[in-house]
Amino acid sequence: MILPKNNRLTEVEVAELTVIVAEFGCRIQPIVGDVRTIYAIVGDERHELMISRLEGLAFVDRVDTIQSPHKLMDIKSDLARHRVKVGGVTLGDELLVMAGLCTIDPKNPNYFYETAHAVKEAGAHALRGGVWKPRTNPYAFQGDNRSLDILMEGSRRTGLPVDTEVMDEEQLRLALGAGVQILQIGARNALNYSLLRQVGKAIAGRETAVLLKRGMHLGTLSEFISAAEYIVNFGNPNVILCPRGTQPGLDGYRNHPDESITPLLKERTWAPVVVDPSHSVGKATYVPACALAAVAYGADGLCIEAHISPSHGLGDDPKQAITPKVLAELITRAKALHALRRSPKPSAPVS
Amino acid sequence: MILPKNNRLTEVEVAELTVIVAEFGCRIQPIVGDVRTIYAIVGDERHELMISRLEGLAFVDRVDTIQSPHKLMDIKSDLARHRVKVGGVTLGDELLVMAGLCTIDPKNPNYFYETAHAVKEAGAHALRGGVWKPRTNPYAFQGDNRSLDILMEGSRRTGLPVDTEVMDEEQLRLALGAGVQILQIGARNALNYSLLRQVGKAIAGRETAVLLKRGMHLGTLSEFISAAEYIVNFGNPNVILCPRGTQPGLDGYRNHPDESITPLLKERTWAPVVVDPSHSVGKATYVPACALAAVAYGADGLCIEAHISPSHGLGDDPKQAITPKVLAELITRAKALHALRRSPKPSAPVS
Amino acid sequence: MILPKNNRLTEVEVAELTVIVAEFGCRIQPIVGDVRTIYAIVGDERHELMISRLEGLAFVDRVDTIQSPHKLMDIKSDLARHRVKVGGVTLGDELLVMAGLCTIDPKNPNYFYETAHAVKEAGAHALRGGVWKPRTNPYAFQGDNRSLDILMEGSRRTGLPVDTEVMDEEQLRLALGAGVQILQIGARNALNYSLLRQVGKAIAGRETAVLLKRGMHLGTLSEFISAAEYIVNFGNPNVILCPRGTQPGLDGYRNHPDESITPLLKERTWAPVVVDPSHSVGKATYVPACALAAVAYGADGLCIEAHISPSHGLGDDPKQAITPKVLAELITRAKALHALRRSPKPSAPVS
Amino acid sequence: MILPKNNRLTEVEVAELTVIVAEFGCRIQPIVGDVRTIYAIVGDERHELMISRLEGLAFVDRVDTIQSPHKLMDIKSDLARHRVKVGGVTLGDELLVMAGLCTIDPKNPNYFYETAHAVKEAGAHALRGGVWKPRTNPYAFQGDNRSLDILMEGSRRTGLPVDTEVMDEEQLRLALGAGVQILQIGARNALNYSLLRQVGKAIAGRETAVLLKRGMHLGTLSEFISAAEYIVNFGNPNVILCPRGTQPGLDGYRNHPDESITPLLKERTWAPVVVDPSHSVGKATYVPACALAAVAYGADGLCIEAHISPSHGLGDDPKQAITPKVLAELITRAKALHALRRSPKPSAPVS
Repeated sequence: MILPKNNRLTEVEVAELTVIVAEFGCRIQPIVGDVRTIYAIVGDERHELMISRLEGLAFVDRVDTIQSPHKLMDIKSDLARHRVKVGGVTLGDELLVMAGLCTIDPKNPNYFYETAHAVKEAGAHALRGGVWKPRTNPYAFQGDNRSLDILMEGSRRTGLPVDTEVMDEEQLRLALGAGVQILQIGARNALNYSLLRQVGKAIAGRETAVLLKRGMHLGTLSEFISAAEYIVNFGNPNVILCPRGTQPGLDGYRNHPDESITPLLKERTWAPVVVDPSHSVGKATYVPACALAAVAYGADGLCIEAHISPSHGLGDDPKQAITPKVLAELITRAKALHALRRSPKPSAPVS
Repeated sequence: MILPKNNRLTEVEVAELTVIVAEFGCRIQPIVGDVRTIYAIVGDERHELMISRLEGLAFVDRVDTIQSPHKLMDIKSDLARHRVKVGGVTLGDELLVMAGLCTIDPKNPNYFYETAHAVKEAGAHALRGGVWKPRTNPYAFQGDNRSLDILMEGSRRTGLPVDTEVMDEEQLRLALGAGVQILQIGARNALNYSLLRQVGKAIAGRETAVLLKRGMHLGTLSEFISAAEYIVNFGNPNVILCPRGTQPGLDGYRNHPDESITPLLKERTWAPVVVDPSHSVGKATYVPACALAAVAYGADGLCIEAHISPSHGLGDDPKQAITPKVLAELITRAKALHALRRSPKPSAPVS
Repeated sequence: MILPKNNRLTEVEVAELTVIVAEFGCRIQPIVGDVRTIYAIVGDERHELMISRLEGLAFVDRVDTIQSPHKLMDIKSDLARHRVKVGGVTLGDELLVMAGLCTIDPKNPNYFYETAHAVKEAGAHALRGGVWKPRTNPYAFQGDNRSLDILMEGSRRTGLPVDTEVMDEEQLRLALGAGVQILQIGARNALNYSLLRQVGKAIAGRETAVLLKRGMHLGTLSEFISAAEYIVNFGNPNVILCPRGTQPGLDGYRNHPDESITPLLKERTWAPVVVDPSHSVGKATYVPACALAAVAYGADGLCIEAHISPSHGLGDDPKQAITPKVLAELITRAKALHALRRSPKPSAPVS
Repeated sequence: MILPKNNRLTEVEVAELTVIVAEFGCRIQPIVGDVRTIYAIVGDERHELMISRLEGLAFVDRVDTIQSPHKLMDIKSDLARHRVKVGGVTLGDELLVMAGLCTIDPKNPNYFYETAHAVKEAGAHALRGGVWKPRTNPYAFQGDNRSLDILMEGSRRTGLPVDTEVMDEEQLRLALGAGVQILQIGARNALNYSLLRQVGKAIAGRETAVLLKRGMHLGTLSEFISAAEYIVNFGNPNVILCPRGTQPGLDGYRNHPDESITPLLKERTWAPVVVDPSHSVGKATYVPACALAAVAYGADGLCIEAHISPSHGLGDDPKQAITPKVLAELITRAKALHALRRSPKPSAPVS
């Protein structure tokens, strides 16, 4: 849909439009209104270059496209029948809980092992544990390859799949080699298309899942879903979208919580949504409320930082991680709310 | 706390600070660090002009104040014992639900009367009904004084208190004269201090409550709470804070939902928080999820647009209002969640 | 333009659209594409209620309107020939400079008088001086009616017109009674439609001009221009749009400078744009750069806080006000840039 | 500086603080105020983990750090004497202009060669040309290795250094191997710390410069400068900071122009600032005004998309690229403004 700057275009201007769209197999159809004429693009309008050229014309105000750019991720794609499974949970059926450390301490592996057992006990279906960490400060602890062994040992001891962030090809290779079941793409790499492609290629033909965090900026939802399309495009559709708060943060939180985008994502894509309340709010005391809100908005799961002894943690754990005890209560409430949302005729609460 | 641009100040610079703060009854105390010295303001630092003068000095980087500017609204003020009551509900004890029309149609009063009965039936404790409306477009319907009679008649017929927005002194006079129990200050007047003062004065000595919407911008929470201080300052502490979403909106919602500020508000002020999910999301289909999220974050109540027949409504009702049936289900779920949040040891859901 | 959720609508759905738009004198025209059909609204689509009803339909994704809602403010309106004049300057021809105090000190009128003479000397065409002040903190100095006399005395002594902010009907009455030539609507009242209407009515038939600040939130430009339409609608078209930064602020500035919207405003409306760099950045040292940037973007003028002795000022003056000496240099540079922008063939700089 | 939740801490709480900071070689010094006591951290407070632990304590409201985290990038570091040189221009002395294509068309190399000659003629000191492109849409043209030869051929033909974006280790290797003089890190990789480290290592000991774009989100300036620290840390300090607009965009621009951060960056770091007006506004017609505004704010240079025939360009060129003729006029005006900013006593413009 081409909206001209003036009420209608001259014949020469229309001819110019026609030539451009014809290159991409489309044609122009004027829609004559009482006051103004607009110009529909008939054909497949998903040519980025065609739109760019049309928008470059001096007499064009803007071009609105209505077709989804997501061939595979779109809610109407054939893939919409696909169900992502993690740790025995089919996303969409049951609420998935992933929990664990922000950063594994290679010198104190027992914190991870004990946390792993405790979060499993609390009801978690998958473990998270940071091996390599993106740090604003280049002089802060950036992670350690030895933590990968600790991560996998935690998986073996508990029988739970593990999630860890990878930031480059080398880490991707190591993580897959070690058997990591869920690869995490962090917010800082949310639009790192080279990495997205590498991950997509590497997991093709495997059962590996990808937890794709949303970027920190208030971008469009289409941009977020397109990032997932980069991965799925190589054949493995086990992708999970993960809102984690945007910048600028609210006055008091680390980020601006964005679990509210869940219903908007679900209108556009079939991909499950697992919210990270820990980064959204950035302080342990606020995490349970944010987690419940995510379930209220229809999230399929939660990814939460927990630690058996937060003050002994690394990275964000001392401020963000909740204890397994708090996690257990949170999971009970979250599951109750998950059930409450789905009950066709909710009964009055027993007070 | 004064943070200088350099690692420490010269004697002359310290003397300059001392002279300024002395005018306001304060003194300067240096805190000598290994690398840098900072300068504490000892005394009551809540003098806006003192801060402004200090910040104007070339050698000052910034001034951090730590004292709350809210004498009355502060969580530690004596007023913290005050409980706001609306429609028989003591806020904080029970979840308050206000519901009704965005805009009363003076030509079709029955829509309001029937909606009023229906939302009472659904469980609402107070009615909302717009008599005068702020409209971006100056040529749109701006409300009608006759609707005030309809509003009050609705109150009489149902026995419920009513809430309506006032935007100037004349409307304030009319609303109070008619007996409106809850005055609403809209988002566009959230920092209209003349109006806030007029409202504060007018309700002093009455039982009238005020629903104060948050402004549309991402301002500090202190600014929001200070707006309430303007009202309470005249003696009537029945003020309710109402988050309603901020601009820019999320891709798909009318605003950026901001129910997540509830825990942050509750750390700073004793005032109850009633969230407006209808304006936060701007479309009926998204309202129930947003309302539940508000309760998840600890809101004391909800203010929801509902209409017996949304498509026959005025203003935002055709797109935002939910039906009484949807409202009834929403209230049941919201109350169950409200109870769930408070139960000390939540039991596993019965599935 | 109605974009349906599915690729095309059923006959029943189209009939439903047709009934709604017919009520407003419009009709529906489908535009059949290869993949998708969209539905144009033929007729005058500027009915807020019609759009609201269409958006409320479950099968409608969104409604795009293309007609400007601004009958009078629109760049294509007959009013586009109108030229606003202030202090002998026809806006658009010559760069207008307004300068003066944030807040007049009623106890020290000489600061205003001396500043008035000094900014006139520096090249300013109009004086600004705050009589009544919106303050976040209810306990801060809110202004004083006596300052109005000082303001007008400054006008008489210098022969320059004066600008002051009014926040309610009483202040409006006093300011007009005293002969204030330029009324300012502040950012906190940018969408206070009651005040906008009162001001519009009060200045009808007079030569008074209005400096309308942009609100603090990142709203649409159409919303900003519509606020001006409220005023102009009563017959006096002397309205000036004033960007002044938005919230959240940049890391280091009071607000997020927004002089960059100037070219976007000028595409949509004929109204002159005068930028306020003082509130945009909030610290004297940054003001000259921001002022120059405003001129670079095509602003027709600048509104700057200046004080003969900033540290003795009230309100924001100690941190924001520049001295007349800095103002004089700023004006020289700003005028040179204003000329440079307009020279059809700029010659190389003499270095 | 530790701000407690209550007016002062208990002895036990202070002891807890003391134990934590002692681990990092710091000690606690209380600053006793009349109303409240705050607690200074004496010693090197730049330990991310120490801050995280302190913030995790229930009785701590927040921790303010005052030391710069940037050892090398800080304005007070020894590196502040370093001057970055590009294409014969010493940044800071003369305004640097980089210009060229968004995307090189491997099938039509002459567009790049002719543009290269034309922008050199117009006054550009360096060429930009996209070989590999980050695209939201995975199905859009992503660039082609053959374009690297075209890029270097353009460099040879004009004698100008070239800038191109690299997004992964392979592209980095190819670009350096071919002799690219300026490596660009794009906004989507602004916090891709793996890439930043790889680039830093790869250019150590070379004369290669890096143009580091700001990320799309409204992050802190410290975060932006820290990203540069990652690169410089390996020994090559030729890093240039490049604001390019943030999300969400203004109503009408592709992004929210952010050239206004230039003075704030220059207070904190010695690194030169080169603004990209093309991505800030996203449409050719707005580029010259934005470029001038950048110079008004003190930018050391401009990076502009230009094309000999924009409508035949790829990527963003059809809408964003300006012609060499427009570029020539823009450069003349930008240089005149650059000189005007620096003239100690600007003379009145010759009108």
